[in-house]
Amino acid sequence: MTLPSNPLKVGVLGATGTVGQRFILLLSTHPFFQVHALGASARSAGLPYKQAVRWKQVQPIPEAVRDLVVKNCVAEEFADCAIVFSGLDADVAGDIEQAFRAAELAVFSNAKNFRRDPTVPLIVPLVNTSHLSMIPYQRSQLSLQKGFIVTNANCSTTGLVIPLAALEKAFGPIDTCLVTTMQAISGAGYPGVPSFDIFDNIVPHIGGEEEKIEWEAAKILGGISDNGQSFDLREKTPINVSANCNRVPVLEGHTECVSVRFARRPPPTVEEAIQAMRSFTCEAQTAGCPSAPREVIFVHEEVDRPQPRLDRDFQKGAGVNVGRIRPCPVLDLKFVVLSNNVAIGAATSSIINAEYAVLTGVVAS
Amino acid sequence: MTLPSNPLKVGVLGATGTVGQRFILLLSTHPFFQVHALGASARSAGLPYKQAVRWKQVQPIPEAVRDLVVKNCVAEEFADCAIVFSGLDADVAGDIEQAFRAAELAVFSNAKNFRRDPTVPLIVPLVNTSHLSMIPYQRSQLSLQKGFIVTNANCSTTGLVIPLAALEKAFGPIDTCLVTTMQAISGAGYPGVPSFDIFDNIVPHIGGEEEKIEWEAAKILGGISDNGQSFDLREKTPINVSANCNRVPVLEGHTECVSVRFARRPPPTVEEAIQAMRSFTCEAQTAGCPSAPREVIFVHEEVDRPQPRLDRDFQKGAGVNVGRIRPCPVLDLKFVVLSNNVAIGAATSSIINAEYAVLTGVVAS
Amino acid sequence: MTLPSNPLKVGVLGATGTVGQRFILLLSTHPFFQVHALGASARSAGLPYKQAVRWKQVQPIPEAVRDLVVKNCVAEEFADCAIVFSGLDADVAGDIEQAFRAAELAVFSNAKNFRRDPTVPLIVPLVNTSHLSMIPYQRSQLSLQKGFIVTNANCSTTGLVIPLAALEKAFGPIDTCLVTTMQAISGAGYPGVPSFDIFDNIVPHIGGEEEKIEWEAAKILGGISDNGQSFDLREKTPINVSANCNRVPVLEGHTECVSVRFARRPPPTVEEAIQAMRSFTCEAQTAGCPSAPREVIFVHEEVDRPQPRLDRDFQKGAGVNVGRIRPCPVLDLKFVVLSNNVAIGAATSSIINAEYAVLTGVVAS
Amino acid sequence: MTLPSNPLKVGVLGATGTVGQRFILLLSTHPFFQVHALGASARSAGLPYKQAVRWKQVQPIPEAVRDLVVKNCVAEEFADCAIVFSGLDADVAGDIEQAFRAAELAVFSNAKNFRRDPTVPLIVPLVNTSHLSMIPYQRSQLSLQKGFIVTNANCSTTGLVIPLAALEKAFGPIDTCLVTTMQAISGAGYPGVPSFDIFDNIVPHIGGEEEKIEWEAAKILGGISDNGQSFDLREKTPINVSANCNRVPVLEGHTECVSVRFARRPPPTVEEAIQAMRSFTCEAQTAGCPSAPREVIFVHEEVDRPQPRLDRDFQKGAGVNVGRIRPCPVLDLKFVVLSNNVAIGAATSSIINAEYAVLTGVVAS
Repeated sequence: MTLPSNPLKVGVLGATGTVGQRFILLLSTHPFFQVHALGASARSAGLPYKQAVRWKQVQPIPEAVRDLVVKNCVAEEFADCAIVFSGLDADVAGDIEQAFRAAELAVFSNAKNFRRDPTVPLIVPLVNTSHLSMIPYQRSQLSLQKGFIVTNANCSTTGLVIPLAALEKAFGPIDTCLVTTMQAISGAGYPGVPSFDIFDNIVPHIGGEEEKIEWEAAKILGGISDNGQSFDLREKTPINVSANCNRVPVLEGHTECVSVRFARRPPPTVEEAIQAMRSFTCEAQTAGCPSAPREVIFVHEEVDRPQPRLDRDFQKGAGVNVGRIRPCPVLDLKFVVLSNNVAIGAATSSIINAEYAVLTGVVAS
Repeated sequence: MTLPSNPLKVGVLGATGTVGQRFILLLSTHPFFQVHALGASARSAGLPYKQAVRWKQVQPIPEAVRDLVVKNCVAEEFADCAIVFSGLDADVAGDIEQAFRAAELAVFSNAKNFRRDPTVPLIVPLVNTSHLSMIPYQRSQLSLQKGFIVTNANCSTTGLVIPLAALEKAFGPIDTCLVTTMQAISGAGYPGVPSFDIFDNIVPHIGGEEEKIEWEAAKILGGISDNGQSFDLREKTPINVSANCNRVPVLEGHTECVSVRFARRPPPTVEEAIQAMRSFTCEAQTAGCPSAPREVIFVHEEVDRPQPRLDRDFQKGAGVNVGRIRPCPVLDLKFVVLSNNVAIGAATSSIINAEYAVLTGVVAS
Repeated sequence: MTLPSNPLKVGVLGATGTVGQRFILLLSTHPFFQVHALGASARSAGLPYKQAVRWKQVQPIPEAVRDLVVKNCVAEEFADCAIVFSGLDADVAGDIEQAFRAAELAVFSNAKNFRRDPTVPLIVPLVNTSHLSMIPYQRSQLSLQKGFIVTNANCSTTGLVIPLAALEKAFGPIDTCLVTTMQAISGAGYPGVPSFDIFDNIVPHIGGEEEKIEWEAAKILGGISDNGQSFDLREKTPINVSANCNRVPVLEGHTECVSVRFARRPPPTVEEAIQAMRSFTCEAQTAGCPSAPREVIFVHEEVDRPQPRLDRDFQKGAGVNVGRIRPCPVLDLKFVVLSNNVAIGAATSSIINAEYAVLTGVVAS
Repeated sequence: MTLPSNPLKVGVLGATGTVGQRFILLLSTHPFFQVHALGASARSAGLPYKQAVRWKQVQPIPEAVRDLVVKNCVAEEFADCAIVFSGLDADVAGDIEQAFRAAELAVFSNAKNFRRDPTVPLIVPLVNTSHLSMIPYQRSQLSLQKGFIVTNANCSTTGLVIPLAALEKAFGPIDTCLVTTMQAISGAGYPGVPSFDIFDNIVPHIGGEEEKIEWEAAKILGGISDNGQSFDLREKTPINVSANCNRVPVLEGHTECVSVRFARRPPPTVEEAIQAMRSFTCEAQTAGCPSAPREVIFVHEEVDRPQPRLDRDFQKGAGVNVGRIRPCPVLDLKFVVLSNNVAIGAATSSIINAEYAVLTGVVAS
């Protein structure tokens, strides 16, 4: 697999939003993606990006996009983009992404709208890039030549399934998983959580989040039917997930306490689990995706790590941190995961997915 | 059971510490306990309380104790106290409490030292005041007439076992429990958690806390052997607890996400569980303990409650808050508990225990 | 002055907002005001209050208003109210309050719209209740018998002018004042400040706030012309104020660092200033306003007080806290003020103003 | 001035503390300083650094120092160091730094002990590197050939004097300055501020801090007498500073609200002040100090900047951020400064000072 010889033009939908801003930052230094078009709501369209956006990142707006004029999210305006990244809100993402796909564009979306679609891959790039094999069938169903939609997972699902995938790769199916999340406010976008609601507080509920984790895990960790036309959703080796989701007063980084039970008896030991996580690699690495982390899972030795403030920026947030792997008195093993919800939990996932799709020829050139 | 006709003189050990300050505040308005003696380390002894203490409460130091001269923690100095409350640190509590008991004093301790002692009741006052029946045997083993030690539970255990007790009372044994805590910084005392460690952060480890929850639950929720000489520790109906403990940037109020499985099949429904929690009462209420809450468990209807900042002060923190009772895809039911770690999780528990002991004649008059 | 023999019916405009909720809480236990009518936007009108409001207070919704049906903010609906409190947003307060006044209602407003009006008193109730003497002229200008508008000051102005008034009462005019505020997020209402903007951060700007402090101080601390038809705005003894306003990650309580210079030479000493603040009393106390604090200014002795979390609830936030009174190397004296922005800084001020107006016969009965 | 051809061996005293950790991080990638020896207390001496330290930085411990064995802070152990950086606590810094100087070592200290010494330069490297001219006299007084001590300023002083120096360079003496600081918790070291003291709170007092700002400003902004043997401390053009210091719940970055009056009439306009700050350069830049920022002062245009979370890492915290330059109704101009208290406010200052001393031949080679 070789890198593209010329930069690929890409578009960003929802460019003024939180995820859109992250796309723009990550793409501004990308080795072969080049931001070519920005889409946002009618309110922003026609303005230079620097005027349209309420920029909320620590780094300044990249020079290359400061003066790009924001477009409406209509496919014709993005016709010469090889790839379109979508950071759109769910209330508009469905129609727009569908229209872009119908216009033969390759859409990599962070929105939830198509995650449960039976022909749309739901890909955590460190886990199941193999699901891109569904794309030909997706196109054929819509009589498309080039257009398709790929989604990445919900941010809290992403942090969970990466260590689960490492464990399953080494030890076979996990049949039960109980997870409690402590999710950062940045996961709610902007303006997101009012400070009055979350200062000195925990909100033990995030609308729809538990259902997402419980459902998405099975699609991501499952396979594809032999005829390549459906996801198996772990029908043969069900994975039963129970999630409790909490919003906590942390800026960035989702912490999750996870307990798992394996189908196999006896289950792996703590040492074996540590070893499996440390040695876990993924196809995005093998394929040479430039945004893939060097280590998919960093396993901490200190008894009080990972911690969001200290560990969320490791590898630019492209991998996950795991710690406290130990026996669970109820299930088999338990551990703590920390993932960067705005990096691998959002924009970085879409970008690695797109890199992999380019490097493996799924994006038509 | 009648209230004492005269105020009872009580002492407070560890009076300058966080828990000691709470004892003093609660006792300053108590209907029949009267602070008579304060004990602290040699550094404080001899000073008026207002000088010895670094007062950290929102309410001012009660007038009645401002000028009380702090004593050393030696039993002779507390000879005329009917009851001694201990907020001592674990590194000194063992020897001092033992000496006070040997001097025929009734000690109600918040320290962990004697919680696992086979003749010392570990009492959460809204759950197992019946364990005071062990006191005669404790005295007999030490040839004492009046002296004894009663401890209350760890703050995060307390929040957990109250709803568990309500469920077991209605539906029989719970055999499995998985709990993830999000614990407030005030649980660590003062100076406690450095701000640099917990701002914008989660620390997914609290030394010894998980072991305490996993062990204490069985003692508290268990019974006493027929001969009244040992705790059964749930030997016949074991309760298997797995705990994950986290420190979170919240001042006060421990939030816990709990999943449980019942021995009985089918398990209770959500509605039945709500009803059982709402109707749960305890002997401390029946006996007329003035510090017992009106409602042991307040069950919230809103989907995003309880929350520490909004709910921790309900009933002065003497009850617990429960919300989000719903089916657990892995065990039977799951829910969220919020308890006030500095009230029912600490000083309030000791005080209700002492009230109950007075009202039932366990404290010798 | 005697208390009214029957409860007075009062209305609350903007009843679902942050200030409106505070009005409702304070009025629910008021000795002679009784909530009779609630007004809010068309979206809420027609709903029972408990459904219309997103209640954000630690105390529950008072029973007496839970089921009150919210009305539109039209004066006819409030015709039998002796007094109407307005917690309306500035974008609608102007027209509505004017209409209510025209309908002969007595309006006590927390909104900014009429603060600069040349016939509307801007009253901090611990400072300048005497400005109610403008009401007859206000009415006469509009040919009204009973209707009028009184406003209270901006929350950060309120905290500042109370100690200034105490100093001026004792030592004559202050000619110069430099103040830097650190203002709590609750001052911005709800949803107010997004958590993403203020976590681990300071925002050194609050729109319009500095101008308000700099201007309002002169109106409040000034007198009324001899003919009772204009405010003197300190024309003869100008007070020059420079304000720097900051939003800080604190829930409640505005902290202000203040430096002042007196016209008189030599200026008062630190000890004299402390004495003047401690002995300061106001007409609202003398008149027996039930919501007036026992001590207008509590002067702290500890070098590191006042602090918002520890001191904001003193006297239910109806007084102010001052500390660190010391010489200023640049002006004469400097000190720190803490005021409760949601109590004396907002709803409590309106209520004391109304109490005083009732007790002194300004509100027509 | 040329860069040294070989790396210079440097030592770090107080290597396990907060400032010591910052020295180590900054030096680990330095172009010509090479960490050669680490000193700490007897408790740490003899241990490999990775064991001795409680590492609290987001970046991991640099490989080159992980296994360095920590030494006692005795000069013989650092004999082959060209430079020693001191991050020692004030309670031990005095004796140790004096001993190191006596042993002919060049000491660059962040401690306060020698800041008021009449022969020790107090240098903010973006302001008064010229004060290094005092070194020959310092050495002569102690009959030393190579040894000397240079200190940098208190963190909150540093943020203040940089814009003051820029203004004075352009417009002549400032005679009056009133500053209110909002200082981050990291300024208090580790464990530093207990979370219980600063969550949801402001502490309006930092011991000794106001005095430091008020005194240090004159030494830094002053000159050196003609005979090179004393600092003039602004005797001829006194600068009168009044400081209010507050601890705020922010991790990193000191925000300061500053008002100034110039000696010259009329004072500069806002536009002139902006221009003066933007064009301000310093000798550390001219000399080519590798750690000097590209822009000494970044002047923000947005009305609500600088903000600590967004701006503290600009230029790795080596410059300062200024915003809201506007007229002051009391003095002449006012503005907001943000400086990174752990970078230019501490370790970065010492390092630039040392770089400048090397590049200008003050450090004997």
